[in-house]
Amino acid sequence: MSLGYDVAALEELINQFERMPGIGRKSAQRMAFYVLDMDHDAAKKFASAIENAHESIKQCSVCCNLTENETCSICQNEARNKKIVCVVEDPRDVMAIERTHEFDGTYHVLHGAISPADGIGPEELTIKQLLARLDGVEEVIMATNPTVTGEATAMYVSRLLKPLGIKVTRLAYGVPVGADLEYADEVTLTRAMEGRREI
Amino acid sequence: MSLGYDVAALEELINQFERMPGIGRKSAQRMAFYVLDMDHDAAKKFASAIENAHESIKQCSVCCNLTENETCSICQNEARNKKIVCVVEDPRDVMAIERTHEFDGTYHVLHGAISPADGIGPEELTIKQLLARLDGVEEVIMATNPTVTGEATAMYVSRLLKPLGIKVTRLAYGVPVGADLEYADEVTLTRAMEGRREI
Repeated sequence: MSLGYDVAALEELINQFERMPGIGRKSAQRMAFYVLDMDHDAAKKFASAIENAHESIKQCSVCCNLTENETCSICQNEARNKKIVCVVEDPRDVMAIERTHEFDGTYHVLHGAISPADGIGPEELTIKQLLARLDGVEEVIMATNPTVTGEATAMYVSRLLKPLGIKVTRLAYGVPVGADLEYADEVTLTRAMEGRREI
Repeated sequence: MSLGYDVAALEELINQFERMPGIGRKSAQRMAFYVLDMDHDAAKKFASAIENAHESIKQCSVCCNLTENETCSICQNEARNKKIVCVVEDPRDVMAIERTHEFDGTYHVLHGAISPADGIGPEELTIKQLLARLDGVEEVIMATNPTVTGEATAMYVSRLLKPLGIKVTRLAYGVPVGADLEYADEVTLTRAMEGRREI
């Protein structure tokens, strides 16, 4: 949809915002006008934050998590237990687990899950890098998503690791804490029943 | 909220997005990751769209609408009726009226409304520029928002223009087309009754 007049630079900016996930035309327009209302330095800072993030953020040479350095702060941290590696699909999953403050091992970020339908095979993920860092690792926790592709990825990786004598575990399935049992889906409830523990 | 590790450039980008209107932490995070996933040229283009918009978009020297030129395309258009000026608060209001394809006059963008509570007086708006362009103008349509501040602004401007012999009109109030009468508020209904026309 054109604005109906000649402000190409504004149109371009709205289009840029509209391309983002979850942003519709109206929000994109609101955001573009917000940018126009910024003072000049703030707009420059915003633009350079984008370029900067894009240029300076790379993958940790050990765990493939995002970092601005050669290795990320978790891999560099002497206090973290290097014998346990938690495998996740996405850097955001690392953040989620870190927020629990309950895990003191290290991570490995696959940057996706095996999904033949989307043309994503094991080579597209950082599985090779995982296999290269198993020296001294005792347990690998597969914390890929509880979805078809996440499950398939967990199975695939575990089949590679088990012959090497490494303990491979999977996150527990069950009902989410604080949720209403009434609304839990059948598969989750079945898994929760299967995984029941004595109290 | 920190990400819990050392990617300052990512944190900065998320903060930038989070500052935008209507964008919460989660959306900002999703947008920042979207930027990281862009290829390098696309990210550069996005960043320069921001700088570009900020640098090249200015106010039309006649009507104060946004433009990349000295005067906007509407003011430049010989086919537009220069005798009628429609006064709006915001460039987006111009877009909204242009979309009706029913108005062939010109605009004047105030860039706000008089709002003493927010410290916005008449001097903060482009009222001076409006007064400077009245030569040959026969009618000024006050299309400020149907709000307290929009109404006050319309009154203020009309009191300046009427002594100059210019016809000043106001957008009609009434029930919005397609809406359910049941849900119309009392003030709107009262105005709609007052403004009723013979059919």
